[in-house]
Amino acid sequence: MIPTRVIEDKRDGAELRAEDVRSFLGAYLAGEVEEYQMAAFLMAVVFRGMTRAELNAFVEVMIHSGAVLDLADLPAPRIDKHSTGGVGDKVSLALAPLAAELGVYVPMMSGRGLGHTGGTLDKLEAIPGFRTDLGLAEFRAVLEQVGCAMMGQTREIAPLDRRLYDLRSVSGTVPCIPLIASSIMSKKLAEGLSALVLDVKVGEGAFIAEEERAQELASVMVSLGEDHGVPTTALLTAMDRPLGRAVGNGLETVEALQCLRGRGPADLRALVVELAAEMALAGEAVGTVAEGRARAEAALDEGRALSRMKRLVEAQGGDVSVVEDPRRMPRAPEVDMVVAGRAGVVTGVSPLTLGRACVAMGGGRTRLGESIDARVGFVLAVAPGTEVAEGQSLGEVHAADQEGLAWGREALREAVTVGAPGDTPAVRPLISHRVSAAGIEVWAPG
Amino acid sequence: MIPTRVIEDKRDGAELRAEDVRSFLGAYLAGEVEEYQMAAFLMAVVFRGMTRAELNAFVEVMIHSGAVLDLADLPAPRIDKHSTGGVGDKVSLALAPLAAELGVYVPMMSGRGLGHTGGTLDKLEAIPGFRTDLGLAEFRAVLEQVGCAMMGQTREIAPLDRRLYDLRSVSGTVPCIPLIASSIMSKKLAEGLSALVLDVKVGEGAFIAEEERAQELASVMVSLGEDHGVPTTALLTAMDRPLGRAVGNGLETVEALQCLRGRGPADLRALVVELAAEMALAGEAVGTVAEGRARAEAALDEGRALSRMKRLVEAQGGDVSVVEDPRRMPRAPEVDMVVAGRAGVVTGVSPLTLGRACVAMGGGRTRLGESIDARVGFVLAVAPGTEVAEGQSLGEVHAADQEGLAWGREALREAVTVGAPGDTPAVRPLISHRVSAAGIEVWAPG
Repeated sequence: MIPTRVIEDKRDGAELRAEDVRSFLGAYLAGEVEEYQMAAFLMAVVFRGMTRAELNAFVEVMIHSGAVLDLADLPAPRIDKHSTGGVGDKVSLALAPLAAELGVYVPMMSGRGLGHTGGTLDKLEAIPGFRTDLGLAEFRAVLEQVGCAMMGQTREIAPLDRRLYDLRSVSGTVPCIPLIASSIMSKKLAEGLSALVLDVKVGEGAFIAEEERAQELASVMVSLGEDHGVPTTALLTAMDRPLGRAVGNGLETVEALQCLRGRGPADLRALVVELAAEMALAGEAVGTVAEGRARAEAALDEGRALSRMKRLVEAQGGDVSVVEDPRRMPRAPEVDMVVAGRAGVVTGVSPLTLGRACVAMGGGRTRLGESIDARVGFVLAVAPGTEVAEGQSLGEVHAADQEGLAWGREALREAVTVGAPGDTPAVRPLISHRVSAAGIEVWAPG
Repeated sequence: MIPTRVIEDKRDGAELRAEDVRSFLGAYLAGEVEEYQMAAFLMAVVFRGMTRAELNAFVEVMIHSGAVLDLADLPAPRIDKHSTGGVGDKVSLALAPLAAELGVYVPMMSGRGLGHTGGTLDKLEAIPGFRTDLGLAEFRAVLEQVGCAMMGQTREIAPLDRRLYDLRSVSGTVPCIPLIASSIMSKKLAEGLSALVLDVKVGEGAFIAEEERAQELASVMVSLGEDHGVPTTALLTAMDRPLGRAVGNGLETVEALQCLRGRGPADLRALVVELAAEMALAGEAVGTVAEGRARAEAALDEGRALSRMKRLVEAQGGDVSVVEDPRRMPRAPEVDMVVAGRAGVVTGVSPLTLGRACVAMGGGRTRLGESIDARVGFVLAVAPGTEVAEGQSLGEVHAADQEGLAWGREALREAVTVGAPGDTPAVRPLISHRVSAAGIEVWAPG
């Protein structure tokens, strides 16, 4: 394997042999392929892509660059869910205990928010005391005890992914489907899963706005999972508006707890139920998706998922009283309302505008390692399709100070588009497609 | 200027602002843009190319990264010639003194051979004592005294080119027309020239085999010259067979000296005369190309170009007796002939086969810094179109030892294709196109 030859072959569109992919990455890990050679290779991949065989070899090295969990001795299948990220996406907080309640183990490793999208770890840490920096041993212990466990990505898992991710972020090689897919899947495939469910967000607030590219990403990830012996399905879900009504880490946590109480926004509940049903089906805890849905609805409505959440929070050191009474969550000092300037129909709510404003108000980060204010954000009173009267509330702004409040008010006003009475908003279906080993299907509740 | 943004814009096909190109390269020179960022940028350029405005800004920074010669006080225009390199290309050795004889100054900075093509410096140094490692002051003194001077690329000229060239060679970003053009032109545009003539080789023995790409390279270089105030013309010339009959540094030097005596192969003489006429025209030493040709022919036939060569060799420390009697050149110990296995017409002579064999026999280098044996190589007895009888010589092999001789014999046999009697070889015209600010024209002796 001559590094320059591998780069040249990729540049010229030739298919690399699996052993050359392995040698190239192995030499990179050993310090024999330089960062500038890897950067040139990654840029060539941006233009040329990777074949399924190349990508499988690539991901295989990434997986085995670190520890691979062995959870096969657990008495039920291990199923995780991964979302590509969006604004208002608090699904994992409600989904992990719910799926556990349906009878699968949920070993969930999550990330932090970066840019305009939030991260599950930041939302969990909005619960006072909640620890996400578990070691692998403690993670396993919580998982056995509660049925689900939630931790940050440890350096022990797929360290090559971290090196490549860091290099990509400074070399202009981030938006590339095979590289994105390899980054996500290398970590998930090291978790010792029985099966995996993916939530691929599509729309302005996701990092992929076009349906076709989202389908491609979903297909590539599904193939990678299948080829590594982990059955994988993906749902394409709407991110042309925020999910639910809350945007901002602590506010989203509160909304997720509402969902676990059988309340909260309908779209959030519908997505959580659907993903739980997919996970239960993948883990053979139910026979059909419909059965999974019914059992998930019941677990939410009967408070069983909430009880499971309490056990999780307790096991990971969090303040359980917050789960019992979400009003005990730390609250921003400045809260104000924005009202409609005229009567009409809400035709759009921009997730990007709200997500970016939340970062600007201190509720997100632009660089890794920055601390964040979990209290700030938005609670929308409307969604696309809502009819509003002049002066009716569009939502609340939660801010740390007057300056943040002014910023947030302006962003909320800008984010919500009020059309003429009778207008119909053009929005994506909450779930548009299901992607599995069988291919891409238009999603329909079956 | 945010480095990652510049890389992303290039990746996405946006045109960079000149100031961003300048800042990006400036930051690279200052160590603030990392090698891996430059490598990713260069790979993006391989796929996206550069616009004329981008490339002008790019080359401008390269030129001014080092010393820029000021030769404006010389009493006649300064004209250089640059060849993109080929097998048997000994043109510069005859051309520099010839063009000086026609009344222009020729400040020629040349390279060494790498891979299957030779380099002018190696050919000059085949003359015992000839020094090419002049400083800029001595270079200028020789130029004033002789009318031409020949030196290696000093580190003082366009050091950014050297850094980028080194990075390209290990990052798979060599074959890219704007990058190749920038590398050549940044050095030439730092030489303080009045005008520049380019010899762009096309064919198997050149690094560009396709006519269209050679035309593109020539056009890009002509534009760069014009945009930097240095009128530039390019001839596209044949490299589907070796130029002349000699391949190998010392043997080529002997052939160049024959040319300066008014003898030697017709194709070499024709190309030297044409390029000298172009240089004289560019320097307004003649009114038409035809006048330039006539004066060049006379200068060769009357021995005036040879006299100028003697003055050059003397000024740069070389053994003048070799110029007077080329038989005094060091000679390989093993010389043998290869003969035709059957009667017929020579339909092809592979420059690549001969160039590579010459390297294998010790007459070239695969890495910078390797020492070479100037004595080894080939003297062809035939060219495409030559009719041969069975047993007639195809050429001589000059080797350092028996092993090299065997290698060379096999290569020569392989390189020369003998077709049936009456076959017509399909070869490129010696000069096919002339590229100038006015565009690409099919070349015709006018």
